[in-house]
Amino acid sequence: MTRRKSYKLREITAKFGGDLIGDPDVRVSQVAAIESAGPADIVFISQARYLSQLPQTKAGAAILAKDAPEAAGIARIVCANPYAYFAKVSTLFNPPASTVAGMHKSAVVDKTARVDKTASIAANAAVGKNVRIGKRAQIGAGCFIGDGSVIGDDTVLHANVTVYHGCRLGMRCIVHSGVVVGADGFGIAREDGKWNKIPQIGGVDIGDDVEIGANTTIDRGTLEDTVIGEGVKLDNQIQIAHNVKVGAHTAIAACVGVAGSATIGRNCALGGAAMIYGHITIADGVSISAGTLVMKSLAQPGTYTGVYPFSTHQRWLKNAAQLRNLDELAERVRQLEARSGKDKGNQQ
Amino acid sequence: MTRRKSYKLREITAKFGGDLIGDPDVRVSQVAAIESAGPADIVFISQARYLSQLPQTKAGAAILAKDAPEAAGIARIVCANPYAYFAKVSTLFNPPASTVAGMHKSAVVDKTARVDKTASIAANAAVGKNVRIGKRAQIGAGCFIGDGSVIGDDTVLHANVTVYHGCRLGMRCIVHSGVVVGADGFGIAREDGKWNKIPQIGGVDIGDDVEIGANTTIDRGTLEDTVIGEGVKLDNQIQIAHNVKVGAHTAIAACVGVAGSATIGRNCALGGAAMIYGHITIADGVSISAGTLVMKSLAQPGTYTGVYPFSTHQRWLKNAAQLRNLDELAERVRQLEARSGKDKGNQQ
Amino acid sequence: MTRRKSYKLREITAKFGGDLIGDPDVRVSQVAAIESAGPADIVFISQARYLSQLPQTKAGAAILAKDAPEAAGIARIVCANPYAYFAKVSTLFNPPASTVAGMHKSAVVDKTARVDKTASIAANAAVGKNVRIGKRAQIGAGCFIGDGSVIGDDTVLHANVTVYHGCRLGMRCIVHSGVVVGADGFGIAREDGKWNKIPQIGGVDIGDDVEIGANTTIDRGTLEDTVIGEGVKLDNQIQIAHNVKVGAHTAIAACVGVAGSATIGRNCALGGAAMIYGHITIADGVSISAGTLVMKSLAQPGTYTGVYPFSTHQRWLKNAAQLRNLDELAERVRQLEARSGKDKGNQQ
Repeated sequence: MTRRKSYKLREITAKFGGDLIGDPDVRVSQVAAIESAGPADIVFISQARYLSQLPQTKAGAAILAKDAPEAAGIARIVCANPYAYFAKVSTLFNPPASTVAGMHKSAVVDKTARVDKTASIAANAAVGKNVRIGKRAQIGAGCFIGDGSVIGDDTVLHANVTVYHGCRLGMRCIVHSGVVVGADGFGIAREDGKWNKIPQIGGVDIGDDVEIGANTTIDRGTLEDTVIGEGVKLDNQIQIAHNVKVGAHTAIAACVGVAGSATIGRNCALGGAAMIYGHITIADGVSISAGTLVMKSLAQPGTYTGVYPFSTHQRWLKNAAQLRNLDELAERVRQLEARSGKDKGNQQ
Repeated sequence: MTRRKSYKLREITAKFGGDLIGDPDVRVSQVAAIESAGPADIVFISQARYLSQLPQTKAGAAILAKDAPEAAGIARIVCANPYAYFAKVSTLFNPPASTVAGMHKSAVVDKTARVDKTASIAANAAVGKNVRIGKRAQIGAGCFIGDGSVIGDDTVLHANVTVYHGCRLGMRCIVHSGVVVGADGFGIAREDGKWNKIPQIGGVDIGDDVEIGANTTIDRGTLEDTVIGEGVKLDNQIQIAHNVKVGAHTAIAACVGVAGSATIGRNCALGGAAMIYGHITIADGVSISAGTLVMKSLAQPGTYTGVYPFSTHQRWLKNAAQLRNLDELAERVRQLEARSGKDKGNQQ
Repeated sequence: MTRRKSYKLREITAKFGGDLIGDPDVRVSQVAAIESAGPADIVFISQARYLSQLPQTKAGAAILAKDAPEAAGIARIVCANPYAYFAKVSTLFNPPASTVAGMHKSAVVDKTARVDKTASIAANAAVGKNVRIGKRAQIGAGCFIGDGSVIGDDTVLHANVTVYHGCRLGMRCIVHSGVVVGADGFGIAREDGKWNKIPQIGGVDIGDDVEIGANTTIDRGTLEDTVIGEGVKLDNQIQIAHNVKVGAHTAIAACVGVAGSATIGRNCALGGAAMIYGHITIADGVSISAGTLVMKSLAQPGTYTGVYPFSTHQRWLKNAAQLRNLDELAERVRQLEARSGKDKGNQQ
């Protein structure tokens, strides 16, 4: 292990702003959790309810929100957005691993591929014809990149990523292991009781600064490209079907499925395991709660939810039994109302 | 890029049937979307509501249903099933990529494997003992095929597919990247607070003309084979557990899970993220809506649904709160009915 | 195929206990399903409702529960837990495949890695710096193991598994193909309409005797490790987010998602496609039904469920329409009750 570089708090605020309270010469070299931090660590608290843990920490410094009380004796940086500030400090302390430029001798790279000399291609990777790989890009062990695909500058493919032919990844993307970009969409046409395959001749176009979580799949388009906008963040095991368009800076949590030809706006947030029907359009700024199935287009920003509230199994059995007859129950209420109205009429 | 081959409309109808209206000598060489098509493209419209877009297209020709109005001046092929017709035309224009027969020098193929001389095995693939690989089959880069497995003629495994030992894939299958065929089923028996593993000694038997989407998993059987019938089409990220049987020509959309020992009939359609309980039987011709959990066997064809209808979060909060007490609400209605009956009695 | 070893029933009960009824010298060499078993096979019945199938079997012997009736003429082993007994017998008959120790010449193993000489590393695997691989461990074809990770004794990684840097797997684990251990958690902080990445500097710590199903993903921790306890069994396509802790001997079925920083107790059982919110705590011994979304911490053991009961689509349409207005329906019931009370008052 190499010795970790340390920074004075005054150096950190000089880089990232914020107000420094306490000794500006305190040195920290790593971020840590409040419970396990030591004197060389800096912690952060973004929610007021965790402030009570601060007196117990052994951390050397803390990143706090502007409204945090003065109580803590610890040296601290006060800022508007402690979580975002923490992200920057952690990135300063933990820069992405660099790799040695060049191709491992076990990599199989077609002679027509144009690989920048500052890029690295790891063991047992395979790179097809006319592929272009940008500056400082990293292609992990066992990756496959199909003919004609483009990997932008500074983009990192971790081990065992598959990119089919004719796909484009922008710059500074991070693609985790097991991701499959550009597999055929689920295009089948029924005839005489059998399914005929529809060739998927579009590609996948992924913007800059996109991160794609492990084992996520993004299918190629049927006729035109499937499009992932710049700055989109995709968690693990997400399924993006053919012809989908995801707007810039949208974040999608794990296990989400987006069906074919759906269009999702910019700055949306999809909770884990949400499912989006095909051929619908979701406006910019929409939030979908975890586990919600969205069956219709959404023209207005806001938060949308549709989840069966869980309970003990016994209670669920009783409530679910009534739900199976809810239409009948509503009809019985209508009849009661009618009778009540009549009764009322009778009484007047 | 090689020059694309073009076809006269009269050549297309000679191959695939349909009625030709307009100039039979119009040449087209690719399928395209209505909005972006050019004069060398043919478009299709399968739903009447899209017909209004036709006058704007720059396409050279269109594939339309028999009931499409005469309005359009564009040359066109009229047929019973435009979507299926389009599939054929697109396949004509976009034949599957061929590969060079033979094994890449980086592939590791056991000397006991029988690989047809017309098959291709790409870079860094590994093929086990006594594997059989059929005519014109294509094994993608980084694929692994375990001992004794069989890959049928013309079957294509894209890059990074894993097939465990003792599995069989039929002819003309397409298996996308990240698919795992034949991993152990989830067979565990509890004893003294711990789980004992149950060896999974069955295999996987996949029929002809099956397509399997990216990152889908099909587990081997506990004692006998897990079976996928001919012509079955599986989308991405589907989980097929041990001992499952899927009937011929059933189509399953992405993110579906089928639990152990379930039997799904022929010609079924499972919507995305549907979940099927273990040890149940689903009849031929059943459709399950997206997001539906099926807990019981289904003996009759038809469409089945069970999805919480989504709404704004505020409205969901109110309705879900009532759902948590639905059994109590039903009881209150019963009491109102009883009282109403009594009142009615009193009034008579 | 090598000839399979056979065992007399008396040898089996000598190893595993149980009462032997019938000829103790019957020889069996394999486990089988009741319908397809032959004279050299032993079958098991753990649920009384399947006992009626026993007279038809051609099996040589059966494993039955203590309360099984005497009727069957077949030789049999009677025990408290036939399913667990069957697991042991099947493991006796079907020992895990052994592999030849050593590294395949196509594997790429960093010279600083410490690989036990009894371990095996298959074709095209890649092993990073300072990795430690224990005794008799098996690293499958195409696997990648990142710098500094540790693979315990007797642990098996099937083909195409990815383990990032700085992760630890215990002893006797089984990791199926497509699994990704240690990818970055979904840590992003929003600022000025964009997402900043939060470095994920924790690792993954997996205990002994853990099995991980195909294409399951377990993310590394943000600051500290994601932890999977000993004896945990994970099925396929499960997503374990960063900072999650799963207690010992918990079993999780396929397609489950566990969101970030959730803590799941010991001896829990999560049904397929269950989803667990982030930052909640689930007590020891909790069972979650398939398809249930758990939004709150659970302090008590028991079974919890939240699933929309499915029905025919037509019936669903009617009931779901009422569910969308359930709060209003409840209000109407309240008004009826109020009026009924008033009417009652009027009548008194």
